[in-house]
Parts: sequence; C-alpha cells; structure tokens
Amino acid sequence: MIKLGQSLTKAFRGKRVLITGGLGFIGSNLARRLVALGAKVTILDSLIPEYGGNRRNIRGIEKQIEVNIADVRDRHSLPEYLRGQHFLFNLAGQTSHMDSMTDPETDLDINCRAQLSLLEACRKHNPKIRVVFASTRQIYGRPDYLPVDEKHPLRPVDVNGINKLAGEEYHILYSQVHGIASTVLRLTNTIGPRMRVKDARQTFVGVWVRQILESKPIEVWGGEQLRDFTYVDDAVEAFLVAATHPNAVGGVFNLGGVGQISLRELAETLVEVTGNGSYRVKKFPSDRKKIDIGDYYSDGRLIEKTLGWKPQTTIEQALVKTVAYYRKELPHYL
Amino acid sequence: MIKLGQSLTKAFRGKRVLITGGLGFIGSNLARRLVALGAKVTILDSLIPEYGGNRRNIRGIEKQIEVNIADVRDRHSLPEYLRGQHFLFNLAGQTSHMDSMTDPETDLDINCRAQLSLLEACRKHNPKIRVVFASTRQIYGRPDYLPVDEKHPLRPVDVNGINKLAGEEYHILYSQVHGIASTVLRLTNTIGPRMRVKDARQTFVGVWVRQILESKPIEVWGGEQLRDFTYVDDAVEAFLVAATHPNAVGGVFNLGGVGQISLRELAETLVEVTGNGSYRVKKFPSDRKKIDIGDYYSDGRLIEKTLGWKPQTTIEQALVKTVAYYRKELPHYL
Repeated sequence: MIKLGQSLTKAFRGKRVLITGGLGFIGSNLARRLVALGAKVTILDSLIPEYGGNRRNIRGIEKQIEVNIADVRDRHSLPEYLRGQHFLFNLAGQTSHMDSMTDPETDLDINCRAQLSLLEACRKHNPKIRVVFASTRQIYGRPDYLPVDEKHPLRPVDVNGINKLAGEEYHILYSQVHGIASTVLRLTNTIGPRMRVKDARQTFVGVWVRQILESKPIEVWGGEQLRDFTYVDDAVEAFLVAATHPNAVGGVFNLGGVGQISLRELAETLVEVTGNGSYRVKKFPSDRKKIDIGDYYSDGRLIEKTLGWKPQTTIEQALVKTVAYYRKELPHYL
Repeated sequence: MIKLGQSLTKAFRGKRVLITGGLGFIGSNLARRLVALGAKVTILDSLIPEYGGNRRNIRGIEKQIEVNIADVRDRHSLPEYLRGQHFLFNLAGQTSHMDSMTDPETDLDINCRAQLSLLEACRKHNPKIRVVFASTRQIYGRPDYLPVDEKHPLRPVDVNGINKLAGEEYHILYSQVHGIASTVLRLTNTIGPRMRVKDARQTFVGVWVRQILESKPIEVWGGEQLRDFTYVDDAVEAFLVAATHPNAVGGVFNLGGVGQISLRELAETLVEVTGNGSYRVKKFPSDRKKIDIGDYYSDGRLIEKTLGWKPQTTIEQALVKTVAYYRKELPHYL
C-alpha cells in the first residue's frame, strides 16, 4: 500500500475537495485522511440530529478545513460550493431504512432530488469535477444468490433503496451523457470510529457498541443473518482510489468486507474483543421484518480487478479499533 | 372478448374511479371506456400546455364525469381526491425524454415525488384502493436482447427513465409492504386518437400524422430502428384487466404491440393508409442520439399468460383509425 499512498498524495496534495455529509461517519474519516494527504477540504453538512453528523468527528482538523453547516436540499447555494472544486465526495444521505418508510418524502428529497440538484450544479458550474457517490447494497434487495455481484438484479425493498438507486443512476447518466466523471460505490455495512452509536439509524453495530460499553446486553434481532462489514479506513481508501483511478469513471463497484459473519457470531466477537458484556437474541420486529433483506454479502472482485482495491481489515481488528475509540469518546456521541 | 366485456361491466358499473392525467391521450380514452361501462369517473389533469391534456379529448362525456384541473405535484389536495375511490388509474406524467434532460428536476417532481405523494395519500386515506400505474419501456434502456421481457436489466438512459423506474418501484413496494394493491404496466409506443400531435413530446407518430395531414413530408430520423406499437383501445383494455384481475396485484407487465416494424416501414405504411404524402429520412440529431435506445420491442407473453390480455389491433388498423380521427379533429390539437 506504500505505492498507493504515494500516488494518492500526488493526486490530492493542494487539491480542492468538497465532501457532502463531511461531519458524518465516513465523510469525516475521509476528511481526516484528505487533510493528511494535503488536500484543501470543504465540508458541507446539515447536522440534522437524526443523521450522522457530529462536530466531534473533526476534532483536531477544524482549523485545516472549511466547514459549512448547510443542507444539500437547499439547492440555491450548491453552485457556490461546487465552483472551483477538483473533487466531490458525495456522502450526504438519509440512511435509515425505517425512517424512509415512515417519512418517504424526506428520504426522496435528500437521496433523490438533492442528488439531481448537485449534478445539475456540476453540469452548469463545474463540469470537470471528479465525483464519487456513496450508494448502498440496499438497492439489491433480497439476494437471489451470494455473494452479490454488480450484475445482480436491483429490487430495493424499501423507499430508501429505491431513492438511493435513482441517486446512483443520475450519477452514471451524468457521467455518460454530460461527461461529469462519476463513480458509484455500493457500500455494505461500514463500521469504525465516528459512526453513529446513539441509535440504529446508521448501523445496528453502533447501538451494539454503545450497549456493551454501557454494560447492557447486546440485542441481536434474529441472529442467523449473514452480513459483511467494511472497516471505515478501508472504505476511505476505496473512495480515494475511485476518485483517482482512470478506469473508475462511469463505473459502479461493490465494496465488500473481509469475509462474512452471522449476526450472532458478530455479537460473540464483540463480546470477546471488549472483554466483557453479553448478548441476547430477540425475535425480529414485524415492521422491520417486512423490509429485511435476509442474508447478504458482497462480491468484491470487480473493484479488486479494476481498481486494485480490496479490504484489509478483519472484523476482529475492526471491532478492536472501534471499541477502543468509543471507550474514550462515547460521551460525545450520545 | 365478449366475456371480458361482460366481466368488466360487472367490475366497474357504479364504481368510483380516479384518473390522473385523465385529459391526456390514454387517460381520456380510458375515461370514455369507463363511462361506457357505467363507472363514476373523476379526472385530475393539470392541462400544462407542453403535456398531453386537451379538453377536446372528453368531448361528449363532459357531463358524465367530474373534471378537476389540478397538478399531482400539489399534494395537499390529493387526499380529498383519493377518498372514497375504488380505483386509481395513475397516468399523469412528464413523458418527454428530451425535456427530462434539460429540466430534470421538473421530471423528478412529477414522475417521482408526486407518485410517492399519491401512494402516501392512498396509504393514509384509502388503503383499499386498487391502483394501476402507467410505466414505460424506457426504463430498460438499450436492450441486451429482443424481444425485451420483464426480467431484462433496468438501465434507463435518460432522467425520465430513472424517475419512471423509481415511480413504478414505489407502487410495487407500497403493494408489498403497505398492502396498496397496485399493478404496473410498462407501455411501449402507444398510438391512436387523442394523442398529442402538436410536437414529439408524447410520441413521434403524433408529429408524423400532423405532417402528413398538413401535406408536409414526414421526417424520419434514422429509419432502421425497430419498434412495436400498441393501439390505444388495446392499451385501455389492458388497464381495465390489470385493475380487476386478482393475479395482477403486485405485478409488473409489459404491454407489447402486434409485431414490430422499422420506422421507415412505419412511415411507408402511414403514407399508404393516408393515400397521399411522402417521407424523408434524416440523420439522427446528436443530442437525441445520446439517449436513443436503438431497436426495441416487447415480449408480451407474461401478461398474456397471467391476465389473458394481448393486443388485437395491427399497426395498419391503428394508423387507419388514427388518420381518420385527425382528418376531422386536427384543428383541435394544434
């Protein structure tokens, strides 16, 4: 990875980078890495309390970046943010599947309409920008086969999945028709420091980490579902590679994790690495069951073959680092 | 078809039916048929000049139906329209592929956001309503194989296709998760009386009919592309069957035409049935070429097998009836 690190420094040093959702989990880790690479980072984040943004996430780099508290739905200021940027990492999103079912129109405004506004602003004001969009494995719905590759049929099972699918399709269309060089990454469960742990709106693993550090039993729903997990540093690396690799333009790639694991095994591993705690298995709540996708894990061979990226961090290593972070930081995330 | 006609009378007599886009091409033909079947029809149409609505389309049935000039984007009145309805034929849409590229956010508001608002209004105020949604073959993009069946990958090549895809996915999701019984019909080129002939925003065949009746040569772009065409009376029949057949709930079906034909042959046939006129072949304009899908025709076996519907009208018969209508009516459509 030394060679990769060097070429990333070359690609980003002195470059202007806009990150939507930059105070959030992945966005802030990306911002930290970009600052280290010498980029000029601007963050756009709405800090809506139900979403992933948290000022704590940029502690230590506040003075090296520009932070704008703004919502991507407020489209009138988007041209100003986009002008002069070399890169757009487009991570702002509504991530809760349940919220998308109870308030579908808000999900649409953020995951669909705002994406189109961002791309229109790029087309009109900065057509040479390089864009990477954070999509989700949710758009596949219930897998026909495992591991799920990029050719799998797209059959989202909730409003969030439908809107994220439209969001990624706009990016590919604008790349093909209008020449706005874009890449789509379909993320699976991403975990690590700076994830939301207050509730399960971003990832259920966040709640688990909180529960175990608060000496409460972890609540596992179901338990037998298989999933894969990407450690956030690996995901950040994928965003950087996707933004700079010439073969990434117009492409759609799964990000996968190192192997797959059942939720019960994941809970056991978390208990083990934490050194204390317990878990209990509960029946799946019926309103969530309706939009649950069953077993899922990604086929990550396309991105490895095309861009040379693959995840490096095992689930145990990811949990060790995550627990270590929240042992110190938990109060700032509640 | 006599048996079908009788069962449709039984299904619709005295029933309350809402048609969005009901002053448009297919919507108005559907309204006329429903009035004949004894239904209580309410129409909702925005009459935006660039779209398909035309008051002339309901001449003769004005007093038997209720007409509201309203836009599906104005969501606050939707609950009032939906309450008490037995059926919703959801046909309001922005249909121009080119307009969706120059003004994508308007296309999104109509084809995406308003669809979600309509379904939310159904969920909250009339969950037992039966819904049929007019989707489009545009969502398939450039075919991998012909004829295109419902399992073909969905890769829309313009903003309109992306938004229509989201629109149909909302319908299927609301059927599966919220029990709003919905059916999606993916229409191919539909032609017949009451189509827009002023320009090509709805169908290029409209412009051709106008050109030939105004003694101008028909302009054929390219000419070798294969297409299939559904006559509007057949399409109307499909909407009625889809709304009443128990096996249609939650289903997605292609509507196809009787056979397929190249655009050049179609122009020749139109000249022939009109008895005069001519056509000339022009090169495809480059901005349209980018979003053109090449050859396309539908595999209609699923709807035939599942619902017993298939198109009855040949392309020649369709053109004869269409030309006869516009010979009299053309001034009301310019």
